[in-house]
Amino acid sequence: MVTVGINGYGTIGKRVADAVAAQPDMEVVGVAKTSPDLGADGAGARGYPLYTIDDRIREFRRADVDVAGTVEELVERCDVVVDATPGGIGATYKPVYEAADTPAIFQGKEDHDLTGTSFNARANFEAAEGERYVRVVSCNTTGLSRLVAPLSETFGVEKVRATLVRRGGDPDQTGRGPINDIVPDPMALPSHHGPDVNTIFPDLAIDTLGLKVPATLMHVHSLNLELGSEPSAAEVRELFEGESRLFVVPERLDADGTGKLREYARDMGRPRGDLWENCVWGESVSVSGNELYCFQAIHQESDVIPENIDAIRAICGLASKEESMALTDESLGVGLPAVVGRERASLAV
Amino acid sequence: MVTVGINGYGTIGKRVADAVAAQPDMEVVGVAKTSPDLGADGAGARGYPLYTIDDRIREFRRADVDVAGTVEELVERCDVVVDATPGGIGATYKPVYEAADTPAIFQGKEDHDLTGTSFNARANFEAAEGERYVRVVSCNTTGLSRLVAPLSETFGVEKVRATLVRRGGDPDQTGRGPINDIVPDPMALPSHHGPDVNTIFPDLAIDTLGLKVPATLMHVHSLNLELGSEPSAAEVRELFEGESRLFVVPERLDADGTGKLREYARDMGRPRGDLWENCVWGESVSVSGNELYCFQAIHQESDVIPENIDAIRAICGLASKEESMALTDESLGVGLPAVVGRERASLAV
Repeated sequence: MVTVGINGYGTIGKRVADAVAAQPDMEVVGVAKTSPDLGADGAGARGYPLYTIDDRIREFRRADVDVAGTVEELVERCDVVVDATPGGIGATYKPVYEAADTPAIFQGKEDHDLTGTSFNARANFEAAEGERYVRVVSCNTTGLSRLVAPLSETFGVEKVRATLVRRGGDPDQTGRGPINDIVPDPMALPSHHGPDVNTIFPDLAIDTLGLKVPATLMHVHSLNLELGSEPSAAEVRELFEGESRLFVVPERLDADGTGKLREYARDMGRPRGDLWENCVWGESVSVSGNELYCFQAIHQESDVIPENIDAIRAICGLASKEESMALTDESLGVGLPAVVGRERASLAV
Repeated sequence: MVTVGINGYGTIGKRVADAVAAQPDMEVVGVAKTSPDLGADGAGARGYPLYTIDDRIREFRRADVDVAGTVEELVERCDVVVDATPGGIGATYKPVYEAADTPAIFQGKEDHDLTGTSFNARANFEAAEGERYVRVVSCNTTGLSRLVAPLSETFGVEKVRATLVRRGGDPDQTGRGPINDIVPDPMALPSHHGPDVNTIFPDLAIDTLGLKVPATLMHVHSLNLELGSEPSAAEVRELFEGESRLFVVPERLDADGTGKLREYARDMGRPRGDLWENCVWGESVSVSGNELYCFQAIHQESDVIPENIDAIRAICGLASKEESMALTDESLGVGLPAVVGRERASLAV
């Protein structure tokens, strides 16, 4: 049983904690956060011991929220840390993890150079094996990597051009915008997302462009890929349907946007209405010559969660890529929508 | 003096009327609308005689709104009609225009086949000369055509790939969405916009993708063009800056999105805060090899207005392409922002 501490209990941290708790080979030692706000109640309801930074302990006690110890104590008490602190803060914690000789998983807002190893389970699980510090790439890079990996293996990929229509903020981020606007971000092209994909696929030719819009539910990618061969749209779709972390959205769901996709996730009983899979609209998959077009929606709050679990197994040597991904998928329930996507008769039962 | 009747007094019709009134060689005979709503007051304030359909005259009189006659009478009384009725309604009016032997300009929501001639002043003015029925292409197609024409002439264009991030509705369209969503529209790729551009550039290889977002101010295009040569980004930008209907947004404006662009238009005293020009963010213009990327914002309510004026001159034989575009630009004030874009010292006065 690998014991896991989660440092940072926001959007990603709380989901990682629940995912760790769902694994047969892992256990949550505790979670660390800096304020006794609503997330603390969620952690308490789940029975996760709560840690905080030294000078916040008094604040927690005043708020009548139990504290099990300091972040440093949490790091000492676990086999591996998942760092889900805000972007850039993870880097400041690395010396703490090193001092305790505790390996750690970082998130995509940290620089690649912090670990030297960026991770996507489908694309490069093996690169993390035996490493002590690994970075799980961002939601958008995860979404792109999951799509590129099978296409690259099966048809070859000569060039990727992606416009990322990004949600302005998560539903709980009241201070973010835009409101009633469409904002190129970044303005200078191509965007930084392409080079981030290159931390997973070093030789891939990829140009990315990003815009922010007044939406909170998911990102949507408008994708163009020049392939190394000329498959039919049906062959591409079939390839996607064979990937557990790609949900090929079937036409019959009438899921015309991100709102209906999230409604579907809620109807399917997903925790927090999460969609761990890339949602590739089946109807959008189009091929002309060697040019593939499609739309996919990416749930920015949750698509990296299975990847964090697999990253833990990779650095701890718990399982092979195939074993880990299968175990993660089974324990969380990843892939159910993909099965629905294939419209298997068994689901009608 | 060419006398012009405007049939339909909504978003486009009211702007066309004002633009016609601003021309030295044209005159507004009257405008036709179907309800005595807020637009009627705007027409009254401007002194445009108001026409309506026969069975609505009583409704206008009950509302104490003067009516000058029926649509049929308006069509008889003018040299040319600009049809700005809702999409699809224009086609039903064509027999009325034919019966009165009055030539007409239609808008982009009508089918190309209705006229057989689709129009963009910069790209194919001559195609409309001597025609009696011409269709001004839609806001998005106008925006794409203005960009493609100079690039095609100067560098060659081998392929266009465009993702159109579209405003969900205009500010006055209270019933439209989406709210907090990103909606592929159409879902099946590529979208119909590409073939519409082909009504202007029959041989252009172009793939377009569209999405709707919760914004009302402008569309934003994420553009990729494979050129026939390998200019620098500075050369492309300079080319754009030479086009009166392309506004190369200078960095110093700090116009990060569509909201700031429209604020700029209001500050510059533009009627209704309109931006007749494509707004190409200068900083976004990027070239690698023969691949050009850039973002442009398109004001869906107004970019086709100069084109309607030029289309009138083309079918009436009033002026050559260059004369007409220059006169339209001068009379409306098109191109002022482009001059600011070039940051000419004279503007500091």
